[in-house]
Amino acid sequence: MGEMGSASKLPEHTMLSASERLELPKSVKEMWNCPYSKDFFAKFAEDFDNEDSSPTISLLSEAASCHGITIIGGSLPEWSNGRLYNTSCVFGPDGKLSAKHRKIHLFDVDIPGDITFKESDIFTGGDKPTIVDTDAGCVGVGICHDIRFPELAMLYAAKGAHIICYPGAFNISTGELLWELMQRSRAADNQLFVATCSPSRDSCGGYAIWGHSTLVGPSGEIIATTGHEENVIVAEIDYSKIKLQRKSIPLDKQKRGDIYQFVDECEEEKHQNSE
Amino acid sequence: MGEMGSASKLPEHTMLSASERLELPKSVKEMWNCPYSKDFFAKFAEDFDNEDSSPTISLLSEAASCHGITIIGGSLPEWSNGRLYNTSCVFGPDGKLSAKHRKIHLFDVDIPGDITFKESDIFTGGDKPTIVDTDAGCVGVGICHDIRFPELAMLYAAKGAHIICYPGAFNISTGELLWELMQRSRAADNQLFVATCSPSRDSCGGYAIWGHSTLVGPSGEIIATTGHEENVIVAEIDYSKIKLQRKSIPLDKQKRGDIYQFVDECEEEKHQNSE
Repeated sequence: MGEMGSASKLPEHTMLSASERLELPKSVKEMWNCPYSKDFFAKFAEDFDNEDSSPTISLLSEAASCHGITIIGGSLPEWSNGRLYNTSCVFGPDGKLSAKHRKIHLFDVDIPGDITFKESDIFTGGDKPTIVDTDAGCVGVGICHDIRFPELAMLYAAKGAHIICYPGAFNISTGELLWELMQRSRAADNQLFVATCSPSRDSCGGYAIWGHSTLVGPSGEIIATTGHEENVIVAEIDYSKIKLQRKSIPLDKQKRGDIYQFVDECEEEKHQNSE
Repeated sequence: MGEMGSASKLPEHTMLSASERLELPKSVKEMWNCPYSKDFFAKFAEDFDNEDSSPTISLLSEAASCHGITIIGGSLPEWSNGRLYNTSCVFGPDGKLSAKHRKIHLFDVDIPGDITFKESDIFTGGDKPTIVDTDAGCVGVGICHDIRFPELAMLYAAKGAHIICYPGAFNISTGELLWELMQRSRAADNQLFVATCSPSRDSCGGYAIWGHSTLVGPSGEIIATTGHEENVIVAEIDYSKIKLQRKSIPLDKQKRGDIYQFVDECEEEKHQNSE
């Protein structure tokens, strides 16, 4: 893969101290612990397997175990075997990292007059979907541009996800047009919940973020959302709505396997290996 | 298929005269030439292969040839070999029926307090997608509930559709929640145009229609739309937007064939037969 070649050319990983992290202008933040800029990804990246060099992972783990809750945190730049990944983590109430999702669909775009960015120059794409049973339900994870691909959501639905969580930072133009649309259609098409978490707007930054962290229910209805300002939303998720919705409009049963099929290649491979 | 069994039990086809058609209350119309009610489908159905018993087909054919335009007209109940289909037709500027789409995904729903309907009690589902080259571009056709299935739109995109046309009649509750959402997400996900045509609202009818016939562009943007009242909209379609959008954000190239695959079963079958 092209991006792997590029990723291996990155400067060596240099850890920042906590104070260096704090000094960074808040205005340019996009990833959860790091400014979204090619100049910073490698510096802020953490090796999740090395406790001493992963302060963000430690912090999330502590928060989860301290409060006895499930946390889906990210995304963070992750160093692993000389490669950088754009990664989100799932922690259980015991503080253990129970899953990590490496962004599968990297954000390579060239929109004249708006944004040009080639994430694959820096990051390596993940090679598998991430779905995990948690105390808060069966969770599929995607990151930002992953939400643009209906296939990933369909794959999670087929694997039994109750909710798909997408941390993401759409910008003002794509955000207004697509952020809510994508969340609602992934939820409605698959009759499950979708939760997103976006950084808030900061018009001083080079990248004006759309914001609007949202929780969407299985009919595509918005249950709770923020505006573009910093905010905390607390909302209850009633998973019985999934069953109700699927009973009322049994989309899955109405699919026409004689006309189209959706194939989970990772499952196919497992199946072939077991034969 | 269960619905085939049901369809064959229908009462014999009885043609209505033009005056009988005109006498019907406008308020209950949903299909294009027929009230959307189990009591009327068979009576209003036309056998498209029999010119003498298909006045709607003749009318559309004449309109297309008279004005030298492409018409996508429907949907109509179609009689064929003792079965009823929910069908939309494509006519070329020569007046010839160049394609017909039989609704693939029948509307079988049971939404407590809203609507209970089992279309498959009456209609037989179509068994293939419909995509046709016309003077107005390469057109994929779907009918109403077909729009709920991202797979059909993906299939049309893979076959080179420029636009997908969905006549449909969502009701007030599903319409408000889903009609625009489905159109915009099918367009944005596949980076092509979507055009829909809905009957207008008539609050006297038993089935309150959402309306809102719409044209959506390949970024998911609404180009033109009606409200719920009777209206005619004229809008220009600039197909160069498709290329531009796909160049800016190459979603198709970014799909991860190593993780998921979408299979067109009809093409698979053709391929296997040719081997």
